[in-house]
Amino acid sequence: MTDLAPKVTAGNRRALARAITLIESGRADHRAQAAELLAALPKREALRIGLSGTPGVGKSTFIESFGLMLVEAGLRVAVLAIDPSSARTGGSILGDKTRMDQLARHPMAFIRPSPSQSHLGGVARRTREAVVACEGAGFDIVLIETVGVGQSETMVAEMCDLFVLLLAPAGGDELQGVKRGIMEIADLIIVNKADGELRAQATRTCADYAGALRLLRKRPQDPDGFPKALMVSALEADGLEPAWLEMQTLLEWRRDTGVWSARRAEQGAFWFREELRRGIEARVMAQGASDVDALEAQVRTGKLLPGAAADVVLAKLFP
Amino acid sequence: MTDLAPKVTAGNRRALARAITLIESGRADHRAQAAELLAALPKREALRIGLSGTPGVGKSTFIESFGLMLVEAGLRVAVLAIDPSSARTGGSILGDKTRMDQLARHPMAFIRPSPSQSHLGGVARRTREAVVACEGAGFDIVLIETVGVGQSETMVAEMCDLFVLLLAPAGGDELQGVKRGIMEIADLIIVNKADGELRAQATRTCADYAGALRLLRKRPQDPDGFPKALMVSALEADGLEPAWLEMQTLLEWRRDTGVWSARRAEQGAFWFREELRRGIEARVMAQGASDVDALEAQVRTGKLLPGAAADVVLAKLFP
Repeated sequence: MTDLAPKVTAGNRRALARAITLIESGRADHRAQAAELLAALPKREALRIGLSGTPGVGKSTFIESFGLMLVEAGLRVAVLAIDPSSARTGGSILGDKTRMDQLARHPMAFIRPSPSQSHLGGVARRTREAVVACEGAGFDIVLIETVGVGQSETMVAEMCDLFVLLLAPAGGDELQGVKRGIMEIADLIIVNKADGELRAQATRTCADYAGALRLLRKRPQDPDGFPKALMVSALEADGLEPAWLEMQTLLEWRRDTGVWSARRAEQGAFWFREELRRGIEARVMAQGASDVDALEAQVRTGKLLPGAAADVVLAKLFP
Repeated sequence: MTDLAPKVTAGNRRALARAITLIESGRADHRAQAAELLAALPKREALRIGLSGTPGVGKSTFIESFGLMLVEAGLRVAVLAIDPSSARTGGSILGDKTRMDQLARHPMAFIRPSPSQSHLGGVARRTREAVVACEGAGFDIVLIETVGVGQSETMVAEMCDLFVLLLAPAGGDELQGVKRGIMEIADLIIVNKADGELRAQATRTCADYAGALRLLRKRPQDPDGFPKALMVSALEADGLEPAWLEMQTLLEWRRDTGVWSARRAEQGAFWFREELRRGIEARVMAQGASDVDALEAQVRTGKLLPGAAADVVLAKLFP
């Protein structure tokens, strides 16, 4: 363990994998070691890209093609998965890496499947700390993949510099595929599978989303024209360079305007308050607010108003 | 004070106004009296409609026309305003009621301007309890108006059975007027000012939003075809009946399918947990977590990871 920090710092991928295993562990001694390790790593800044897309949009193919383009351009790429559903299914988004075998075998890349056991809150902290470990290991780009179960996109967006939503071409009534709220957080909407017979449909889908994006109010974190809808063919590695250029345009603007650093600071503060809130709640509840569920049941049936029920618990906890 | 509950129950509007003043008060004895009063009122269920729209969309005119239509149909209508900005500006959305003087003078209507002093969290609880007071007073419909500052729409949506977004006609590049996230919570988008020279533009705006709504995934709380975009002219009282019919269609479906009652139960549970969380946080923080700000500053500059900073506070609070 003592030699882990220098090895991770040197970019050793096996050491990084061990570090992340430590970060993911629920054991108290492991958590202490992980904290020590993270503190010992150099503060480096990778570009953190969040990527969401439902099964079937070609997410693995996209990560493989996009990742290979980046490593071939001399950039070191780490891929992490955030998958709150895995707590239930025991599954892993990135699976056995065979879905992106070229990238997985590339010396400039690091792919980490999602942990199989964890709850959502824990997932967020562990993923954030795995990102920091990848940054300490000198990766230039950290891709955080999510299938978008529950609140996972919002969570990923809160730990990324850039959030990409990947879609498949769809027509007419099929267009309801986008989860509500996601237009709010996407910086780029990329319509994949713009190849072969689907090309025309991809063009229409892309235009539809470009139109929808224009209906939304401009966000302070965006230069003119963003968020944008683009199309690519991950299969034919077509459109990936332009997509990467758009990302760089956006990121350079955010760096120049100070939005980047302000956002990182805000994200840090957000997660600090969030961890604190969760920690306090868990400990206070454990200290004997066992009547919370009974009171909630009364609120649900309308017998008690929410504020009055909260007052009952608060009076007990803080006499 | 002792005769307030029966008077409110009898539908006395002056008594209701006094009850809400009590609910809005920050004084501990008033809060206790308010809790007692609310517990003494009969449990009645009004239709709670949230209404959001930025200044200039004709919200007052809409409330006046729509409200008059309802009272003329024999329904008792209460209008409340939720305005988190008023804490800063001291202003009130509903102003001096002169903006909707016909409705204000109608014996079947009750209009309550927003309180001039309060913070967002407090506003939510006070508004919810004012809604319950209006229900206890036998009103059939409670309209909750917001200008949509900060998170106020989300807050209003969490206390309503139906959420309406009011828009003005807009063309081309002006279409960015919709705050992100609001498409997620709107049940009906109503384009106002569909009259005179703006009629054609209103038609296009309505079609644009109808198209955008189709891009979003169907929500479990909606029957086919909802959320919908409609247009009205509040000025000419045109299209209000059809809008009201759409609302009734939606609400009947939600009642029949059990979505209505499930939603009310969820909302109650949400606010209970929310009040509890806020109450715990405030009390714990007051008990001596004065280093929270200093730690947050270190997190913001990247000196400390959010989780590690939270652990420091938690270790102090729960040794």
